[in-house]
Amino acid sequence: MKNILLIPDSFKGTMSSEQICSIMDRAIKQHYPDAQVTSIPVADGGEGSVDAFLQALGGERRSLTVQGPYAFPMESFYGVIKKTTAVVEMAACAGLPLVGDELHPDLTTTYGVGELILDAAKTGCTTIIVGLGGSATNDGGCGAAAACGVVFRDKDGKAFVPTGGTLGKVESIDTSSLDPALKNVTITTMCDIDNPYYGPTGAAHIFGPQKGATPEMVKILDANMQKLAKVIERDCKIDVQAIAGSGAAGGMGGGMAAFFGSQLQMGIETVLETVNFDKLLTKADLVLTGEGKIDGQSLRGKVVIGVARRAKKVNVPVVAIVGDIGDDVEGAYNEGVSAIFSINRLAIDFKAAKPRAPHDMEKTMDNLMRFIKRMGL
Amino acid sequence: MKNILLIPDSFKGTMSSEQICSIMDRAIKQHYPDAQVTSIPVADGGEGSVDAFLQALGGERRSLTVQGPYAFPMESFYGVIKKTTAVVEMAACAGLPLVGDELHPDLTTTYGVGELILDAAKTGCTTIIVGLGGSATNDGGCGAAAACGVVFRDKDGKAFVPTGGTLGKVESIDTSSLDPALKNVTITTMCDIDNPYYGPTGAAHIFGPQKGATPEMVKILDANMQKLAKVIERDCKIDVQAIAGSGAAGGMGGGMAAFFGSQLQMGIETVLETVNFDKLLTKADLVLTGEGKIDGQSLRGKVVIGVARRAKKVNVPVVAIVGDIGDDVEGAYNEGVSAIFSINRLAIDFKAAKPRAPHDMEKTMDNLMRFIKRMGL
Repeated sequence: MKNILLIPDSFKGTMSSEQICSIMDRAIKQHYPDAQVTSIPVADGGEGSVDAFLQALGGERRSLTVQGPYAFPMESFYGVIKKTTAVVEMAACAGLPLVGDELHPDLTTTYGVGELILDAAKTGCTTIIVGLGGSATNDGGCGAAAACGVVFRDKDGKAFVPTGGTLGKVESIDTSSLDPALKNVTITTMCDIDNPYYGPTGAAHIFGPQKGATPEMVKILDANMQKLAKVIERDCKIDVQAIAGSGAAGGMGGGMAAFFGSQLQMGIETVLETVNFDKLLTKADLVLTGEGKIDGQSLRGKVVIGVARRAKKVNVPVVAIVGDIGDDVEGAYNEGVSAIFSINRLAIDFKAAKPRAPHDMEKTMDNLMRFIKRMGL
Repeated sequence: MKNILLIPDSFKGTMSSEQICSIMDRAIKQHYPDAQVTSIPVADGGEGSVDAFLQALGGERRSLTVQGPYAFPMESFYGVIKKTTAVVEMAACAGLPLVGDELHPDLTTTYGVGELILDAAKTGCTTIIVGLGGSATNDGGCGAAAACGVVFRDKDGKAFVPTGGTLGKVESIDTSSLDPALKNVTITTMCDIDNPYYGPTGAAHIFGPQKGATPEMVKILDANMQKLAKVIERDCKIDVQAIAGSGAAGGMGGGMAAFFGSQLQMGIETVLETVNFDKLLTKADLVLTGEGKIDGQSLRGKVVIGVARRAKKVNVPVVAIVGDIGDDVEGAYNEGVSAIFSINRLAIDFKAAKPRAPHDMEKTMDNLMRFIKRMGL
């Protein structure tokens, strides 16, 4: 047991991926002081994604002033890893916590996200990872696109920056004016959901309410997006509605695809590729991963399974340390998970268990490492 | 992983040791169909102890009519293992469930237990294991002794069979008349508690109430036992009060020591010796044990620790599968427990977890065996 990779998902609302990595690392070192342990905190695209990448790979955190959700200037940031790869989390200038009680998804913009992207491109980044999640916006990614040079015009031919409430006024889109700095840049968008752009399971209906949209506003936002999708199809030659995840982050998923030519990708896949996980695996004796609850849903490309699939190919054992274990986890074993251990050590409900989680994680890891060592591994 | 020993304690009130052995065995066979698995259900002396020994070692279950708790004849039983070792559980004719709502610990007798013992001795058993626990009696073991020939006399020199309420009338004890069939028999008494014969932590005060003794009756029973202890000291040359566990089962512990010359022993030690555990260990690759809750208390000679101490000497790994894991289990590792896994798979309280226990045990075992196999053990 010389080389161990740590790549746990966060236990949402209980422990961050970074915190879990740190607990795991400490427990391993107590039993294998000479082990080489590589911590890969898992970014999911949402708040904290930049820091997760920086912690996993090192790099630079760049601060700059961009437009916030209501277009007022604000101090925001992005990260640069591996010298030329930028990591932008949209929550850093369009996030829900930034608007406080001012919940108006018809008015908020992703313009600042475009400014972050453009700054990264202009300063030499050739790959840009954009993390979706936790947004206060429903502008279909138009704000970000406008910041990067895409021109949206109304019926009078007047250029404007659309927001959720005015998306329906877009009559034409000109992407030819996209800033040339972005030409040879590969943009990948981290997106863990597969909602479409509009419709009953689209951005407005599913995520609008939590951003403050009333039932009436949801209808307007949704109609606007449906109208915009038609213009996009005509002017950008892309059917955003058909892209799984285009409805993520108020349609930012669709906007990234339509205006920036970005692929949408499961966050864990982006992380695994960015950290060159397959190469790390070649030296690994064991991978430790985990998530708050493993169940049938986890099999749909979430962290544990994403990790296990790759490890299985090169025959590296994967142990998942989780909160709850659902009953339908047979599939996880089939995908390459060697074993699943719950941190639940007492028969107590979640409310009582939650504050104990770091402690229980530590004890569970300690027990696992004792066992592995005792069995002569 | 060719040879595995199963020796789990029951999860009290949730799963019997037999049931756990069966679940463990099934899970092992799914991953190691050719493994030699030896199940040793753990008898604790109480109800079910005879069956546990019979299941572990095979043997004969003998039925016979003896006196029940109120001296009426009843069909009872004991077991014979290894041809000449009898296992008697006192609950089989002096157990609390036998009296129903008729709770009178001043009137109940262990006479039938003596009859079982005597029958075993007369039919050739040279070792007799007597299991204490779950008794309805408080007769200090006098009934059992009387059945085997010990004579208790009152102030008028009249022989009688004392019960809890009349122990104080014993003025002399004659053990010379003990049935000669018992002369060359070794009697071991299984006793997991260390309460003294009388006093605030003695048989009457601690266990009297659950047998139906009112506070007034507790005082009488306790005074009677204190008086009897003096007579025992004079006539049997033994200070029962000084023997840890003499207060077990209404003073049956003390009576077994005083009238039968029996050693009191932790139940698990009796089991380990009887099944020749040390010899089984020499071939074992792994021992699986467990109990309902492992904590600091478990270190006081209970099943998991009793097993681990022996396995440690011959360097065989021991895995405990338990219900709850307390926070003070560091000592368990020091005693030879290699790892402890809880069957708790969800953060739910005990009420919700209890009916799931067999299912959770099965899944936990399945996971463990997958892991062991995957790690190439």
